[in-house]
Amino acid sequence: MSLVAVGTVAFDDIETPFGRAEKVVGGACTYISLAASYFVQPVQIVSVVGDDFPEDMLSEMRDRGVDTTGVQIKVGEKSFFWAGRYHKDMNGRDTLDTQLNVLANFDPILPESYKDAKYLMLGNLTPQVQMRVLDQLNQRPKLVVLDTMNFWMDVALEDLLKVIARIDVLTINDEEARQLSGEHSLVKAAAKILGMGPKYLIIKKGEHGALLFSEDEVFFAPALPLEEVKDPTGAGDTFAGGLIGWIAKTDDTSFENMKRAIIYGSAMASFCVQKFSIEQLLELDPIAIQKRVQQFAQLVRFDV
Amino acid sequence: MSLVAVGTVAFDDIETPFGRAEKVVGGACTYISLAASYFVQPVQIVSVVGDDFPEDMLSEMRDRGVDTTGVQIKVGEKSFFWAGRYHKDMNGRDTLDTQLNVLANFDPILPESYKDAKYLMLGNLTPQVQMRVLDQLNQRPKLVVLDTMNFWMDVALEDLLKVIARIDVLTINDEEARQLSGEHSLVKAAAKILGMGPKYLIIKKGEHGALLFSEDEVFFAPALPLEEVKDPTGAGDTFAGGLIGWIAKTDDTSFENMKRAIIYGSAMASFCVQKFSIEQLLELDPIAIQKRVQQFAQLVRFDV
Repeated sequence: MSLVAVGTVAFDDIETPFGRAEKVVGGACTYISLAASYFVQPVQIVSVVGDDFPEDMLSEMRDRGVDTTGVQIKVGEKSFFWAGRYHKDMNGRDTLDTQLNVLANFDPILPESYKDAKYLMLGNLTPQVQMRVLDQLNQRPKLVVLDTMNFWMDVALEDLLKVIARIDVLTINDEEARQLSGEHSLVKAAAKILGMGPKYLIIKKGEHGALLFSEDEVFFAPALPLEEVKDPTGAGDTFAGGLIGWIAKTDDTSFENMKRAIIYGSAMASFCVQKFSIEQLLELDPIAIQKRVQQFAQLVRFDV
Repeated sequence: MSLVAVGTVAFDDIETPFGRAEKVVGGACTYISLAASYFVQPVQIVSVVGDDFPEDMLSEMRDRGVDTTGVQIKVGEKSFFWAGRYHKDMNGRDTLDTQLNVLANFDPILPESYKDAKYLMLGNLTPQVQMRVLDQLNQRPKLVVLDTMNFWMDVALEDLLKVIARIDVLTINDEEARQLSGEHSLVKAAAKILGMGPKYLIIKKGEHGALLFSEDEVFFAPALPLEEVKDPTGAGDTFAGGLIGWIAKTDDTSFENMKRAIIYGSAMASFCVQKFSIEQLLELDPIAIQKRVQQFAQLVRFDV
């Protein structure tokens, strides 16, 4: 219950071997909140857009239980914009353009109704903005999940470490775990990173699945082998949205339930990549999600 | 029951970030047979060495239930030799030297006692040699597993395809599956490769685990996150040895049992990489193996 998510709401130009999509809706918070909304409502989001962002889309999000009270609309300014081209193997991508626009001076303001958040998802953003959100809460949430990336390790490590010290779950990819810890072995990397504050570390490996570490346990969640990946954009954010949505719905932060949360997150991400932009995330239903989750269970089931 | 394994018995020079080992015992068939010997004995091997290969080692293998009747010892010649250096991340390696020596003219001769093999493991070798082995059998084995690599796809594709048409299980890595099929999606790659003859395809992804495909089922086996990987040499062969050893022991080639076989293979490989060369493979016991297999089960266990 009571879930707040912070991140970008934006436009993307996306090019993959399967096609192009221009000025489509994107942004970490968009993916996170749409994914989470299948598990819990409302999802109270904190973000900023320009007046070029379609009111229709915000309205669509509200219809799905996303509370947009915390979305600032900057008149006369433009929304954050990212353009990227995926490599043929889909595992790498080149950023072709980044226009910060409204994000350049983003000061997140939490509405009063958000300040008692029990669950908080901090999407990938500058660590200073993430910290500003933490500072406005009336009390520490039951669980804070932080998503970040190598860029912030390069340019704002000190700030990032301060945020990491105040959260419960960190989600990064394998290369980022190695960079942050200075350890090549993910087991050693996890031990070091958990020493920085978080109770859980989730290492995302894309098509190779995800690892969950606590101080004394480890869990591996597979990725579902898919016939076609059309557009990986937003997969990590969708994963985070499914994860925090499941946790908020069940109100259970145990390791056992984190495992389930990762499977739900992985299932949502597996849907996300099958179409461009947020398209697939608008078309799901609980039965389809449950069926997909069972495919994950089936995929790794064996008896010895 | 009745398991024949074909492949190299050789020397390696190995350099990893953890150290160097010079002129240590290596070769696909060495790893395969030592791993398989924990599950079934005898393991009847077919290989060739020079008179520089230590009789002590062959004797040690015999003590472990490896039948070396099919190992040709070429007097006045030298054993196959490979030297390689692993990259810092252990995922890539450079070959520094390859001396074919006795392998240059290797003509595998199956002793009479081998010709009714129920299970056959064709280790990575030139497809012509693999074919020569198949041609000497009195009847088709119950299950033939083939390991190969991109090199043979580059230089002997036609021969390789003929061998693939005659086997039941193909084990290759993800890049090789893509090369062989011309498909990037592993799901599509698997469908194409299964169309070439095999009943099962195993795609090895190293530290990312392995996928098993049949015509209508898929299984994912995780890799165990390890604190330290000292030397990846022979991991794929050890995987194959554990796999075929388990199948031969249980005499069950169903999809359900292939899943178990892959877990046993993965467990054996996870031991192999923890020390240099075959060192760790000489020090195991059934209890340690069973314990390791349970770690794999624990790693992916969740309920939804």
